[in-house]
Amino acid sequence: MSELRYNYLWDTWSVVAPERERRPHDYPPHTYPSKSDPSKCPFEPGKEYLSPHEIFALREPGTAPDTPGWKVRVVPNKYPAFRIENPVEPFRAGIYDAAGGFGAHEVVIDTPDHFKHPHNFTVEEMRDLLYVYRERMRSLYGDSRIKYVLIFKNYGREAGASLTHSHSQIIATPRIPKLIDTVVSQSRKFFREKGRCYLCDEIGYELNETVRVVYENERFVVYCPFASLVPFQIRIAPKYHQSDFSQISDSDLYLLSDALRMALRKLYKTLVNPPYNFFIHTSPPVRPFPERPNYFSGMELFFHWYLEIMPRITVHAGFELGSGYVINPTTPETAARFLREVLL
Amino acid sequence: MSELRYNYLWDTWSVVAPERERRPHDYPPHTYPSKSDPSKCPFEPGKEYLSPHEIFALREPGTAPDTPGWKVRVVPNKYPAFRIENPVEPFRAGIYDAAGGFGAHEVVIDTPDHFKHPHNFTVEEMRDLLYVYRERMRSLYGDSRIKYVLIFKNYGREAGASLTHSHSQIIATPRIPKLIDTVVSQSRKFFREKGRCYLCDEIGYELNETVRVVYENERFVVYCPFASLVPFQIRIAPKYHQSDFSQISDSDLYLLSDALRMALRKLYKTLVNPPYNFFIHTSPPVRPFPERPNYFSGMELFFHWYLEIMPRITVHAGFELGSGYVINPTTPETAARFLREVLL
Repeated sequence: MSELRYNYLWDTWSVVAPERERRPHDYPPHTYPSKSDPSKCPFEPGKEYLSPHEIFALREPGTAPDTPGWKVRVVPNKYPAFRIENPVEPFRAGIYDAAGGFGAHEVVIDTPDHFKHPHNFTVEEMRDLLYVYRERMRSLYGDSRIKYVLIFKNYGREAGASLTHSHSQIIATPRIPKLIDTVVSQSRKFFREKGRCYLCDEIGYELNETVRVVYENERFVVYCPFASLVPFQIRIAPKYHQSDFSQISDSDLYLLSDALRMALRKLYKTLVNPPYNFFIHTSPPVRPFPERPNYFSGMELFFHWYLEIMPRITVHAGFELGSGYVINPTTPETAARFLREVLL
Repeated sequence: MSELRYNYLWDTWSVVAPERERRPHDYPPHTYPSKSDPSKCPFEPGKEYLSPHEIFALREPGTAPDTPGWKVRVVPNKYPAFRIENPVEPFRAGIYDAAGGFGAHEVVIDTPDHFKHPHNFTVEEMRDLLYVYRERMRSLYGDSRIKYVLIFKNYGREAGASLTHSHSQIIATPRIPKLIDTVVSQSRKFFREKGRCYLCDEIGYELNETVRVVYENERFVVYCPFASLVPFQIRIAPKYHQSDFSQISDSDLYLLSDALRMALRKLYKTLVNPPYNFFIHTSPPVRPFPERPNYFSGMELFFHWYLEIMPRITVHAGFELGSGYVINPTTPETAARFLREVLL
């Protein structure tokens, strides 16, 4: 019997339909389109001149910007959706509301190795990548016009990756995105009603139930959310309350690296190299917000950051697009069991 | 310079980015996966025994249910996401909210011809299909537990179609889907502020501006919405106010058939057979709603039904999934110009 499941944070319902249940071997294997020739890849060491000037890099001591010697390198997106040079002001376009495309759009080249992907990273390599995420987030929030920074990764063509060389993206926007705003308002509502952080409750419950838990270490839990939007969705969250990813400590970066690496390795093995997206949802930085003076009040108490991995092995079709509901053909309990038990 | 554009009805923002502009020939052609063998297709005339018993059909006079002679045939989905037999009641699952999977999930076999798709339909064939949509919607609303009926079509594998034989789907749900609820509340807000229907205003403005209009006939307008979520998105709406698709007249069905057929033929020609979804957003039927007693007040004045076509030629990636914003690399003005001018 199928069930509707309510995702408290996003305020959405998922239909979990065991009649449509699929197991890992029911999904076709996805081979990563690695046909791209490294000699033509703009992200190779030695080809730094093909990118705009680098914004930030983790480098060998003594190497110069825009030359080889980097481990992780951040450059502006050549085809940005947002630009710092654009105006931020809203305007009217006939009867419609519009606004300038102010913001930032950066590309993180995750590794100099054309053939290495996050599931192959060592714990140190993954920690370096997460360190760069944190540093870019801290830096971008130095611009007071920026209200939110979304860090995300597209892996595989079906997940929207247009280049095979492993990379992530950072988009900084002058308004709080709709989905984040929903997470904020739902978290605030829960906090007002119960005096507790919603995700702290969820994590405590899941660690106790264990059925949807995939992995845990001293500081992080990896689990399949109760109302997963897609099959094999995985959430990674700090076990102890922390609202702002950019405040993560160096030692926690190492443990987050372990958790993320385990999640991606398990996903790779269980679904035979599936395409996926991941993104980090963190609290917006506290800023003056004249339209909503109480918006940030208590934010550090009720917002709990997390990293969400969304495998792209199903297609959201007319029903999902037209209703805002989703149909998820694999229960999170089944997904978690396969991910937990897979041999690495 | 890119722009953020506000979609009033759905309360979402689209980034329209001419820097990323693509023209039709920049999109790869999508060949429809017609490898499925008609002799193995469960929707062929003569194979009626492969489907559950038919719910409704447009038939030659004198032919019996579940036998050949039908023009359009409706059967229960063999793998339903919702079932009439399921309970409707919400329940608690540990700390989470859940509800039974009550509802209906039907398949409309659009044509007996395995190789015919809506862009090849005659006006009469398309009218017959729309007639069946209307009749099923009227019938399902006879069950007072049903709060909404979503009619949609998935064409092509990238749009979620698993069988090539042309078919549509109908899902009836015991709650008003989130997206419809948003359309209702946004339309109500506009009506309270201005005393007018939002979509009547939009249609009047677009017909006057003409730049985003693709086609019109006496009763319907076909245009690319200002804040389109995807490239070449097309909206079809009645020019004169009508809230409820199930109340459409027979003569308007014929003119809607003309408009939908033209839109799909233009899309086929412009994008070389792209995958797409379409769905109808209509006002929920007026019903007792104890939790929200004023929910339906004025609904017939402020809700304006429309049919939305969403080509699936781009992938929503980490940014869209993580933010709820979308990046649309083709302006609706460019899309409309190509669609308007293409030779049929």
